[in-house]
Amino acid sequence: MNAPANFDAYDVGYDIPAVPGMAEADIQTPCLVLDLDALEANIRKMGDYARAHGMRHRVHGKMHKSVDVARLQETLGGACGVCCQKVSEAEVFARGGIKDVMVSNQVTDPAKIDRLARMPTLGARVLVCVDDPANVADLSAAAVKHGTQLEALVEIDCGAGRCGVSTTQDVVRIAQMIDAAAGLKFAGIQAYQGAMQHLDRYEDRKARLDIAVAQVADAVQGLKAVGLECDIVGGGGTGSYYFESASGVYNELQCGSYAFMDADYGRILDREGKRIDQGEWQNALFILTTVMSHTKADKAIVDAGLKAQSVDSGLPMVFGRDDVIYLKCSDEHGVVADPNGALKVNDKLRLVPGHCDPTCNVHDWYVGVRGGVVESVWPVSARGKAY
Amino acid sequence: MNAPANFDAYDVGYDIPAVPGMAEADIQTPCLVLDLDALEANIRKMGDYARAHGMRHRVHGKMHKSVDVARLQETLGGACGVCCQKVSEAEVFARGGIKDVMVSNQVTDPAKIDRLARMPTLGARVLVCVDDPANVADLSAAAVKHGTQLEALVEIDCGAGRCGVSTTQDVVRIAQMIDAAAGLKFAGIQAYQGAMQHLDRYEDRKARLDIAVAQVADAVQGLKAVGLECDIVGGGGTGSYYFESASGVYNELQCGSYAFMDADYGRILDREGKRIDQGEWQNALFILTTVMSHTKADKAIVDAGLKAQSVDSGLPMVFGRDDVIYLKCSDEHGVVADPNGALKVNDKLRLVPGHCDPTCNVHDWYVGVRGGVVESVWPVSARGKAY
Repeated sequence: MNAPANFDAYDVGYDIPAVPGMAEADIQTPCLVLDLDALEANIRKMGDYARAHGMRHRVHGKMHKSVDVARLQETLGGACGVCCQKVSEAEVFARGGIKDVMVSNQVTDPAKIDRLARMPTLGARVLVCVDDPANVADLSAAAVKHGTQLEALVEIDCGAGRCGVSTTQDVVRIAQMIDAAAGLKFAGIQAYQGAMQHLDRYEDRKARLDIAVAQVADAVQGLKAVGLECDIVGGGGTGSYYFESASGVYNELQCGSYAFMDADYGRILDREGKRIDQGEWQNALFILTTVMSHTKADKAIVDAGLKAQSVDSGLPMVFGRDDVIYLKCSDEHGVVADPNGALKVNDKLRLVPGHCDPTCNVHDWYVGVRGGVVESVWPVSARGKAY
Repeated sequence: MNAPANFDAYDVGYDIPAVPGMAEADIQTPCLVLDLDALEANIRKMGDYARAHGMRHRVHGKMHKSVDVARLQETLGGACGVCCQKVSEAEVFARGGIKDVMVSNQVTDPAKIDRLARMPTLGARVLVCVDDPANVADLSAAAVKHGTQLEALVEIDCGAGRCGVSTTQDVVRIAQMIDAAAGLKFAGIQAYQGAMQHLDRYEDRKARLDIAVAQVADAVQGLKAVGLECDIVGGGGTGSYYFESASGVYNELQCGSYAFMDADYGRILDREGKRIDQGEWQNALFILTTVMSHTKADKAIVDAGLKAQSVDSGLPMVFGRDDVIYLKCSDEHGVVADPNGALKVNDKLRLVPGHCDPTCNVHDWYVGVRGGVVESVWPVSARGKAY
């Protein structure tokens, strides 16, 4: 093994899959591997784009759940902070030193509201979304109780069909309630169009986003008419950020998947009809897997199955090879078609997961690799923080 | 809150979802809840069945990944030990005091073989499966190096199309190599027919299992002819255990899902054509989830999405209600059809997950509930132990 002098095989493979200095070939699988050159390039590229277009970039921490990646996005990508989806997740980022944390979601449970209202004492600006008038009073009472300030945005359902209000009238009504509530500060509008991000064609995505922009512009106007300014008009994902940037209405992007890429996002097409993983973004995230059985001539069994990934958006792609295909999986096994018998037991493959967010949430560690050597081992800091 | 005197809301919702003594209504969601009465009844029932049919029951620990549940299966269900699929997982059970641990899978990576060969020093009998002659020498060398004994079974592919050899000739050849190898003891045959467990009709499952039994019987005969006895002829799952028990060939069952049940297993039919979750087994495992947005009259948004479950085998069922349906999900949200507007924000639902194994692997804790009160909070001890 090409490992550091103090390396003992018994150090890895129980709690951690690797230690810095190890050869990539010795990493215990299945585990998540980050190509650090690709990751840094993606982060820099999105940061440069946002800066050039006068947009803030609040990176979506729910994708990676990692304080280390979020800090890299601040230092290399100029991120203004993070957003995430759960209170427990937001606490991880705040405790980890991120100073501007938005829960881009509703918080309605009394215990969660209490936690959220305490969070500014960790030293972070804390923002939350609201789509229900009754929620305003609860958030206000908790902030007053803890002597803190929560910033609140009104969430607009601009096409995802999930949370959020649908009319400018409702936006204005809730915004005014927030503005009048003790302990709360009205911060603007949250308007993420999640349903269109994965449409293949650029024109189809644009058509959906045009509708969202019109809806958001109307809400911003409605708020202005009653004297309320939006510090934040936020939204935008990896499949749409150029639309929000060109909208003249949004001022904050919230992209997540661009940093890691995955197979489902990778196949959407850019303006020129090219897959976005063929130029716009690089695959930086892989599931490293090992062949552990090969009793059939044309089929290899690998050690990454359902417990090493989420297959909700399709199966993983084998990276850098067109001679083998990941066909199906069960809990702990993947079946790989190997028609030429190219694979043998203990060979390793890099898989591009179908969907990065829930795949990262299954793992405890990111093993950062550069030039075939392990450079970093970062915890998936907010893994399991679903509360 | 109906909570113990020393309860502080701030104790739960970050690292743990509940503390013993809390009311079920106060549990932080999404999280896994075990109905302890149902769990104990399932465990007792399968234990009684195995005993009455002269079978050992090696419970499948890969399903729950919990030392606490495995111990309950030993004490209430008479389990002889556990099987699991990964070396790191087996270590958790051995460190947790389980004295008989089988890795019902191949172990081929050099570092993993080394760990496996050290495992008997934790005080457990350690068994592993083999389907590759080259693997025998590697396992032997590691056991000799550490002065331990590993028991090895030959795995037969009896229909799953995954790992395992297919002919009696190959079984005998590998068994003889194991028998002759220093540090190894030949322990028998592993023959789990995983591909038929989820076929709906009892007769269809039986037809597949009949083929497997014939194949296994032939291998046992072939081994006998060269003087090798099988201590273990193991296999059998929740959809087949009665077939293996009646086979006259198998002597060890390896059921997992029966203890918790899930929606995918629940819909298979027993001999009388009745769903197995309508009498044979009780739903003991639930994802507890909370309504966190309800801006559309006929749709509630709950807080359990892709990061609270695996949807590989279908969406979860809402337990005990036929007025609402879990329609779809994204990373942190579930969309529940609520045609009568029966749900309101902060209402809780119990979901029966589509597939228990990879769903349990997403969570850190099992919250055990009896009579509406939290009785136990058990770690998912081997969560993330995929190496």
